[in-house]
Amino acid sequence: MENFVFQNKTKIIFGRDTESQVGEETAQYAKKVLLHYGGGSIKKSGLYDRVTASLKKAGVDFVELSGAQPNPRLSLIRKGIDICRKENITFILAVGGGSAIDSAKAMAAGVPYNGDVWDFYCGKAAPEKALDVATVLTIPAAGSESSPSSVVTNEDGDLKRGLTNDLLRPVFSILNPTLTFTLPPYQTACGAADIMAHIMERYFTTTQHADFTDRLCEAAMKSIIHNVPVCIKEPENYDARAEVMWAGCVAHNDLLGTGRNQDWASHGIEHEISGIYDVAHGAGLAVVFPAWMKYVYKSNISNINRFVQFASRVWNVEIDFHNQEKTALAGIAALENFLSSIGMPIRLKEMDVGSDRLEEMAAKCTGNGTRTIGGFMPLDKNAINEILKIAL
Amino acid sequence: MENFVFQNKTKIIFGRDTESQVGEETAQYAKKVLLHYGGGSIKKSGLYDRVTASLKKAGVDFVELSGAQPNPRLSLIRKGIDICRKENITFILAVGGGSAIDSAKAMAAGVPYNGDVWDFYCGKAAPEKALDVATVLTIPAAGSESSPSSVVTNEDGDLKRGLTNDLLRPVFSILNPTLTFTLPPYQTACGAADIMAHIMERYFTTTQHADFTDRLCEAAMKSIIHNVPVCIKEPENYDARAEVMWAGCVAHNDLLGTGRNQDWASHGIEHEISGIYDVAHGAGLAVVFPAWMKYVYKSNISNINRFVQFASRVWNVEIDFHNQEKTALAGIAALENFLSSIGMPIRLKEMDVGSDRLEEMAAKCTGNGTRTIGGFMPLDKNAINEILKIAL
Repeated sequence: MENFVFQNKTKIIFGRDTESQVGEETAQYAKKVLLHYGGGSIKKSGLYDRVTASLKKAGVDFVELSGAQPNPRLSLIRKGIDICRKENITFILAVGGGSAIDSAKAMAAGVPYNGDVWDFYCGKAAPEKALDVATVLTIPAAGSESSPSSVVTNEDGDLKRGLTNDLLRPVFSILNPTLTFTLPPYQTACGAADIMAHIMERYFTTTQHADFTDRLCEAAMKSIIHNVPVCIKEPENYDARAEVMWAGCVAHNDLLGTGRNQDWASHGIEHEISGIYDVAHGAGLAVVFPAWMKYVYKSNISNINRFVQFASRVWNVEIDFHNQEKTALAGIAALENFLSSIGMPIRLKEMDVGSDRLEEMAAKCTGNGTRTIGGFMPLDKNAINEILKIAL
Repeated sequence: MENFVFQNKTKIIFGRDTESQVGEETAQYAKKVLLHYGGGSIKKSGLYDRVTASLKKAGVDFVELSGAQPNPRLSLIRKGIDICRKENITFILAVGGGSAIDSAKAMAAGVPYNGDVWDFYCGKAAPEKALDVATVLTIPAAGSESSPSSVVTNEDGDLKRGLTNDLLRPVFSILNPTLTFTLPPYQTACGAADIMAHIMERYFTTTQHADFTDRLCEAAMKSIIHNVPVCIKEPENYDARAEVMWAGCVAHNDLLGTGRNQDWASHGIEHEISGIYDVAHGAGLAVVFPAWMKYVYKSNISNINRFVQFASRVWNVEIDFHNQEKTALAGIAALENFLSSIGMPIRLKEMDVGSDRLEEMAAKCTGNGTRTIGGFMPLDKNAINEILKIAL
């Protein structure tokens, strides 16, 4: 096991009707906040009314910024930063999924910074302070509700980049599974693919001894595999929705990644796809991950062993003791079957992505071929191009 | 799943040589601290020197209070409270295992309180503030290094009682697995029994749908079962020691208990045993838990089902689909075998506890028969007497 530091300050308030506590919780931090959300869905569902009523009741004033969208845009973030500065706002409440939360985090880092917020995402600077962020979560997927991460798209160049910093962990997050009842099957499945990917990015490690966190990862994956199909069949099954919402949160708060090196190549590759084509992040991951697996699994015996463990422990594949490769491939096939069964694409063509820009994407995620990505197996531009071809 | 609130503020600093960071971390909170520890072991091992050197280097002054012992005594805690008040100390650094940490937490709650600290433990009052506590852990067992709990023995009446309050979570805890290399097999096993018990108190629930936390509990138990025998055979196996140390911490920070009702009858019963006989807490739990299981498993079909899950998923017992009871009992037997195999007693007589004070203990842990204990199956005085008889 490798040395690590782990601290997760986020207070999770989980369960039915918990959004009614948002005012009271917020009032402990600020009397005036930026309320950031997407579009009409939270108005249609009544969530907007309940949240704003709770804020008003607690004496919390708010300025609104709507328009958060999947693959959150830098332009909106800059607008939010301006508002916070003009209105002397020190607290941002995001109501929505990962996009609203990631935008809010970017604003939170940008407000006290004497420069352009994109500096943090392209690695030119690191935030030294940030406003407080809190969330009312409506989509279990990104895990942003208690993670230190934020992903943003810069429309100027179709660049999608991430920032990770403990300052960005929300101070509190409200998770009410009933808010996810109205999520359509496709979005539910995209969320599941994203959650599975967050776990797999940590699971595929070269750290030789990480038994406890291996088992935590396997526990989380099995719970997702077991409960997501229930959510799709029975959208108002509270218990299944609750399992997915809580597992999705823990999947990305990095408990499951403690003491081990992690991969993250698939996220890097996917960001290039959704940066250009604006596909759903979860769908992109459903396509990239199996292709990545088919490329990396056999590069050495230790990699094969890990895929055998994945097949056996996560997918209950019966081990072929005379043919490890067969077992490993059966595990990858089981993942593909699962993703297909919940309605995810598993090939680029299913998302109408052709072969014409593969090299461009491979170049972009390796700094034009100047570096490799991936902790499990370092991948250069050519390797990524091959993976994208497997995904076609 | 039940509604819950979960927040764990403790910063975990994990790995080799991490105790060298104690001064720097402490200095962020205080320039003068109470250094609380047990006896000579940390001096013999050199840990005392390394910790005090780090404090001095960071400009942190300290007053010492040694003498923490298993089943921490109220008298020493009162002494610590006096010292903190006299010396204007606002931060307590505990170096040791659960006893030193639990004492430190009691002092932390007692210092700002205008009354006797025992009030918190006998339920007469709840702490409204507490000093900051931090730890350098030397024994993986109690989980106190990131839990909100503290257990104290009042010598006046042999009363052992617990207090749980989020104020008591340490601000940081340093976990260096090499510090556990010198733990003798018996203490290693006592720790394992304590850790298993913390998980099982949460695992045995009447909450019908708690799939994700079920699987997290199973993951933690399997990691303990797998790694503790390695620690006993190879005391200096870093990786095995690290798995046990990290799993033991997560086992009791209550992530594994989120959204589910919990039992805690076995802890209640064990506290009466170690309150009178001063046996090691872990050893007492190794005796009580199997007896508790034999009493409660068959009280209804839902209980049997849970024990079948325990047998199958934790112990890999092959399910007898025609005889659930047989499967359930095989799981309990597997737990007993495991505990025996690592050198734990599984009967009272192995700890030289006779049958003469069973009724007294049953009375004490039920408020003289006025209340029941246990969330999985409420137990009255007579039921506890029966369980203690099974344990003979």
